[in-house]
Amino acid sequence: MENFNFYSPTEFVFGKGRAAEAGNFVKKYGGNKVLIHYGGGSAVKSGLIDIVKKSLENAGVEYCELGGVKPNPRDTLVYKGIELCRAEDVDFILAVGGGSVIDSSKAIAIGVPYNGDFWDMYCGKPVEKALPVATVLTIAAAGSEGSGDSVVTKEDGMLKRGTGSDLLRPKFSIMDPSLTQTLPAYQTACGATDIMAHVFERYFTNTEEVEITDRLCEAVLLTMLKETPRVIADPNNYEARANIMWAGTVAHTNICGVGRQQDWNSHGLEHELSGLYDVAHGAGLAVIMPAWMEYVHGHNVMRFCQMATRVFGCQMNYEDPEATALESIHRFRVFLKSIGMPINFSELGAKEEDIPVLVEKFGIGDGKTGGFVQLDKHDVAEIYKIAAHTVL
Amino acid sequence: MENFNFYSPTEFVFGKGRAAEAGNFVKKYGGNKVLIHYGGGSAVKSGLIDIVKKSLENAGVEYCELGGVKPNPRDTLVYKGIELCRAEDVDFILAVGGGSVIDSSKAIAIGVPYNGDFWDMYCGKPVEKALPVATVLTIAAAGSEGSGDSVVTKEDGMLKRGTGSDLLRPKFSIMDPSLTQTLPAYQTACGATDIMAHVFERYFTNTEEVEITDRLCEAVLLTMLKETPRVIADPNNYEARANIMWAGTVAHTNICGVGRQQDWNSHGLEHELSGLYDVAHGAGLAVIMPAWMEYVHGHNVMRFCQMATRVFGCQMNYEDPEATALESIHRFRVFLKSIGMPINFSELGAKEEDIPVLVEKFGIGDGKTGGFVQLDKHDVAEIYKIAAHTVL
Repeated sequence: MENFNFYSPTEFVFGKGRAAEAGNFVKKYGGNKVLIHYGGGSAVKSGLIDIVKKSLENAGVEYCELGGVKPNPRDTLVYKGIELCRAEDVDFILAVGGGSVIDSSKAIAIGVPYNGDFWDMYCGKPVEKALPVATVLTIAAAGSEGSGDSVVTKEDGMLKRGTGSDLLRPKFSIMDPSLTQTLPAYQTACGATDIMAHVFERYFTNTEEVEITDRLCEAVLLTMLKETPRVIADPNNYEARANIMWAGTVAHTNICGVGRQQDWNSHGLEHELSGLYDVAHGAGLAVIMPAWMEYVHGHNVMRFCQMATRVFGCQMNYEDPEATALESIHRFRVFLKSIGMPINFSELGAKEEDIPVLVEKFGIGDGKTGGFVQLDKHDVAEIYKIAAHTVL
Repeated sequence: MENFNFYSPTEFVFGKGRAAEAGNFVKKYGGNKVLIHYGGGSAVKSGLIDIVKKSLENAGVEYCELGGVKPNPRDTLVYKGIELCRAEDVDFILAVGGGSVIDSSKAIAIGVPYNGDFWDMYCGKPVEKALPVATVLTIAAAGSEGSGDSVVTKEDGMLKRGTGSDLLRPKFSIMDPSLTQTLPAYQTACGATDIMAHVFERYFTNTEEVEITDRLCEAVLLTMLKETPRVIADPNNYEARANIMWAGTVAHTNICGVGRQQDWNSHGLEHELSGLYDVAHGAGLAVIMPAWMEYVHGHNVMRFCQMATRVFGCQMNYEDPEATALESIHRFRVFLKSIGMPINFSELGAKEEDIPVLVEKFGIGDGKTGGFVQLDKHDVAEIYKIAAHTVL
């Protein structure tokens, strides 16, 4: 195990009906004037925004609001948010929505006190200051409610980039699983795929002797394999929704990733897909992640066998471990397909002829990147090719 | 799943050589004058206290010190600590040691700003204020480095009582697994037993549909089953020590216990044993916990079967589930014995004839207590009897 620091100071406020407590929590964490940041109409139509506003009023907290966050949140709205916060003397950002809304909120939180372009921090500059952020979560997926990460897309060129800092960890996150019950099955499945991908990015490591984090990763994956089909079959299954929601947070606070090298190439490869085609991040991951696994499995067949036997219920083939490794990747794809996810380019709406563009945008030039396996541009193209052609 | 709040703001600073960072972290969390609180001579002899002092000096932080914490920490030393802190204007308590030292530190932290007897808070009064506490951990066991709990023994009558509050969660905890390499095998095994017990207290629940926390509990237990025998065989196995240390924290921050009813009777039953005989808490748990399991398994045989198959590697006996349940309890005892733990009263140094005294001290009168199974004084006596007589 490697040395590490782990710091997850977010207060998680979990369960049915908790959104009405938003005002008290904003007050507890020092907010006087709040920006309520949200996405399309659903948070408004469902009445959630009204519940939040009323709760803020009851707590004597002022607010202004900015809706319109799109999936793969854009820099253009972030600039608007920064301007609004400065004009209105906002000192606290409350994200009401999913990962995109939260990530957009974090970007605004960075931008308000920064004397320059917030995009600098998405190009490698460390975050030194940020307004406090909190969330009312409406989809289990990104884990952004418990992480210090944010990913934003530059509209000019659809360039998707991320940043991270403990300063961006939400002060509190209200997580009501019943708010996710109205989500369409496709979005639910995209969220579930994202959660699993967050674990796989940590699971595939070259760090040895990491049993506790291996087991924690497997705990999340096993939960997702059980609970996801249940919510696809019955969107109103509160209990399955609740298990998925907490699993999504555990997957990404990094409690199951500390002390180990992580990979994150699948996320990088996917960002170019959702950047170029504006598809859902989870759907892109469903296409990329198994393709990545297929391409790199030879790097450590036994690690794939561990996943196969502990997570996917495969019998270990002691005479042919590689067969077990490949079987687990096949089972992963079967699972993804069963919950309605695409598993190749055409199902996703991506085009094989764009692979050179994707590789170019991935932007590693003649270099290499990745934790588990170092990929060069040739490898990247090969993985996109697998993703393009896969059939079950 | 039940509604819950989860708040674990401790910064964990994990790995070899990290104790030298203590001073910087005290400063980061606002300490100006520190009480270094520790136990017997080992933290002094090993040079650890000197490393901490030097680190404080380098950071420009003043300190005073109070050693002498015993296992099952006493109220008498807590009173001394409170007096010292008041006389020296201490504003930050740094525990250097294991669970006892940390718990004693938390009690001092409660007592300094309290206008009355700190023991009030160990008799049910809520904690309203406390000095900040941080830790340099030297044994993986109590989980107190990441929890808001504290247990102290009143010397007059050897009465062991606990309190809990988020205010008692350490600001930071430095966790260097190599500091645990000098621990005798017996203490190491006691710590491992305590870690597993913290999980079992949460695992046995009447709350349904808690797959994610079930799986997280099982992740910790599986890790302990793998890693504990490795450190008993080779005390210098840093990697196994590291896995156990992080498992011990995960076991008790409550991340694997949220949203579910918990039991905690085994801890209550054990506290009377270690209170009366001054034995190690983990050793007492090794005797009590399987006896408790044996007594209550009929309440939910299938939950024991889940533990049997997922944790102890039993084959499910579908014709006789109870046999599977009992097999898992047997395997747990065999494991405890294999790491050098006592499994009955005589191996622990307890006496069957004291059972009426233990039951009396347990103090439930004609009432009942417990989350998974409500026990009355008759049940309590029966569990002590099982614990008295067990042989493998």
